[in-house]
Amino acid sequence: MKAIQVGLLGLGTVGGGTLTVLRRNAEEIARRAGREICVTHAAVRNLDKAQALAGQGLVLTTDSFAVVNNPSIDIVVELIGGINPARELVMQAIANGKHVVTANKALIAKHGNEIFAAAQAMGVMVAFEAAVAGGIPVIKAIREGLAGNRIEWLCGIINGTCNFILSEMRDKGAAFADVLREAQAKGYAEADPTFDIEGIDAAHKLTILSAIAFGVPMQFDAAHIEGISKLAAEDIAFAEQLGYRIKLLGISKRHANGIELRVHPTLIPAKRLIANVEGVMNAVLVKGDAVGPTLYYGAGAGSEPTASAVVADLVDVTRLITADPHHRVPHLAFQPDQLSPLPVLPMVETETACYLRMRAMDRPGVLAEVTRILSEQGISIDAMIQKPCAEGENLANVVLLTHLAREGAVDVAIANIEALEAISGKVTRLRMESLA
Amino acid sequence: MKAIQVGLLGLGTVGGGTLTVLRRNAEEIARRAGREICVTHAAVRNLDKAQALAGQGLVLTTDSFAVVNNPSIDIVVELIGGINPARELVMQAIANGKHVVTANKALIAKHGNEIFAAAQAMGVMVAFEAAVAGGIPVIKAIREGLAGNRIEWLCGIINGTCNFILSEMRDKGAAFADVLREAQAKGYAEADPTFDIEGIDAAHKLTILSAIAFGVPMQFDAAHIEGISKLAAEDIAFAEQLGYRIKLLGISKRHANGIELRVHPTLIPAKRLIANVEGVMNAVLVKGDAVGPTLYYGAGAGSEPTASAVVADLVDVTRLITADPHHRVPHLAFQPDQLSPLPVLPMVETETACYLRMRAMDRPGVLAEVTRILSEQGISIDAMIQKPCAEGENLANVVLLTHLAREGAVDVAIANIEALEAISGKVTRLRMESLA
Repeated sequence: MKAIQVGLLGLGTVGGGTLTVLRRNAEEIARRAGREICVTHAAVRNLDKAQALAGQGLVLTTDSFAVVNNPSIDIVVELIGGINPARELVMQAIANGKHVVTANKALIAKHGNEIFAAAQAMGVMVAFEAAVAGGIPVIKAIREGLAGNRIEWLCGIINGTCNFILSEMRDKGAAFADVLREAQAKGYAEADPTFDIEGIDAAHKLTILSAIAFGVPMQFDAAHIEGISKLAAEDIAFAEQLGYRIKLLGISKRHANGIELRVHPTLIPAKRLIANVEGVMNAVLVKGDAVGPTLYYGAGAGSEPTASAVVADLVDVTRLITADPHHRVPHLAFQPDQLSPLPVLPMVETETACYLRMRAMDRPGVLAEVTRILSEQGISIDAMIQKPCAEGENLANVVLLTHLAREGAVDVAIANIEALEAISGKVTRLRMESLA
Repeated sequence: MKAIQVGLLGLGTVGGGTLTVLRRNAEEIARRAGREICVTHAAVRNLDKAQALAGQGLVLTTDSFAVVNNPSIDIVVELIGGINPARELVMQAIANGKHVVTANKALIAKHGNEIFAAAQAMGVMVAFEAAVAGGIPVIKAIREGLAGNRIEWLCGIINGTCNFILSEMRDKGAAFADVLREAQAKGYAEADPTFDIEGIDAAHKLTILSAIAFGVPMQFDAAHIEGISKLAAEDIAFAEQLGYRIKLLGISKRHANGIELRVHPTLIPAKRLIANVEGVMNAVLVKGDAVGPTLYYGAGAGSEPTASAVVADLVDVTRLITADPHHRVPHLAFQPDQLSPLPVLPMVETETACYLRMRAMDRPGVLAEVTRILSEQGISIDAMIQKPCAEGENLANVVLLTHLAREGAVDVAIANIEALEAISGKVTRLRMESLA
């Protein structure tokens, strides 16, 4: 059969990796796919820089639309990232009847609904395995491998930058700002790290995972997002003392009336497998009603790990390129006319156990006041530790673990505790998940 | 579209689970697959016992061939296990142009080549996700999710019985025989546990994983198989002291001249994620050249976890049932005319680091003799510990960890060490893997 002709948009970290992997493993990939997959065109920013990587037999251009509009190209691979012009390019490729493979999580999380509708109308595929958790085939696992299950919840360590920072903070007892500088020096964090450390990147990926797990449209704007930039080293140490690790998790759960969609630092039992995922590695834990908990682990970023997912999508698309659309796996795992209207629940309705740390004056009666406030909100206490603060201060760090409590009730209790004369400053609140 | 009609062979643990999951999640499964999947016929051993489970709308028979030969049935699901009559039934179903889903690892590992050739000739699919690691979609991950990679090696905890026994032996310092009895009482081990504890079941699954990872035919008869029945509690304790866990691993690696295919108890660094997979859970670690290491974890057995894989296969087959065969994923991941002739390497050519434990007389010069013998075979020592044996004996347990050494050289060294007058009894040899 004729080779499949691929046009790459972007020849940076992931684009370069994709070209390298496709060329290095060309023979083995053709043995799998049943035909060759050739990159024939690539759109780049800097022709001179790209020429060395591209070598012979690959037409380079600075005009991305020329690639998207080239009639010889079967599949467009969008690896430039960001919303504009990626969105226009993908929409134009679809309008031209081309299939699309993308690693662009922001684009899919924010404009996936529109993109999939257009693809559906044109009878083309848009594949996005590389958009979540890099090389881990977790989109395929959820969408196809767990197709017999009613998925109950999922959670993931889906931002390697944050997981590296949290691993180092725990290992070395170091402060956030110091470890962030180390991560930047190692190339694990960007010069402007906001997208990663504030949880936005994780929320993009969680939005995509949630959509394919529950058969709902992308609802990124409704996600609750907290990052790790305010996390104190002492909270990591207290958590460890209590048998927990703190991870930045993306969490999505299904209830009868809606889904939870939230990214925040989370205390999880240290003995859970996912608690032991360290450094820049990613992992996604998925709970199905039939299969129980399953976990998928691997590199969540990087040139060749992400290229691994891009090429797997290229093989899938190649295999089904002449098939009727009903032979293909639906974009969001469920048939497009069968999506669920479940809304995202407001964060105040979420129920979690909580870790609460406060600085309290070391005098009788303070704890009684705190527990009275919690009790008024129907919040019961599971465990407590108390440690003197720095010398010279008449303050103690009081850490409470609560049983399951409604977020809204905890909000009220925290406001009331902070209003106590004997409490200094803000209450630190972290959510807990048993993942059982 | 018309509902897909499924005939079940066997309504035991997995068959019953499959029926339950298909019925409970019928609405969600149809939303995914685009049409209903209905079990219309089931062949069982005992009609009375099956009737309660089957309920209305399902025709029961004791004649499996009647199901396989029924023209109304689209997909035959073989869940009776064993070779005969499963093999005849599957071959007959294929000859009748029916697609097959099976959880039968022994059948696929031993007769997969013949079965896939017949399926290929008839243009039907034979899906076997449930044959390896129960509900973990690891066949799909390797065959499709990692399709861009040249897979270098894989290893798996793929027998829950053995992993439960090893976890308990370590936790409680208990002897193998005691934990085996506990496992039998809990239903984690069969009355005759040979298939599990001697590594045969793991070797069936490893054979399948190896075939799809490297694109080679099934070569079960060439596998090296050792179980856990001879493992001593003291070796687990020594391993722990040295920073290792002992797991029964199925290991397959690719070399230029062949593949390794071996099942044996293995020391692995305690800090590896897979070392922390405990109890009856399964996990498979796959190293691809682009993606690096990836791990897949979940329940490896049980009614609904295995049913989860069976139903996922049913959805896949349903989706592609009217597609041209070239749109489908090849049975062994590679196109059938593109399999590799790589043979399984003889075990004596395998290179691993080793754990060697011997009971040596506590007198000067013994260690010098042992190290001389190892050195003669080109084997160098990485670490050593020595502990007195039981009181009243003038013997010490000497444990040596070697660097990488050829199996054949270690065989010779062990024979020479055992011939020493100062060494009592046999040398215990366990292989080590760094999994890096």
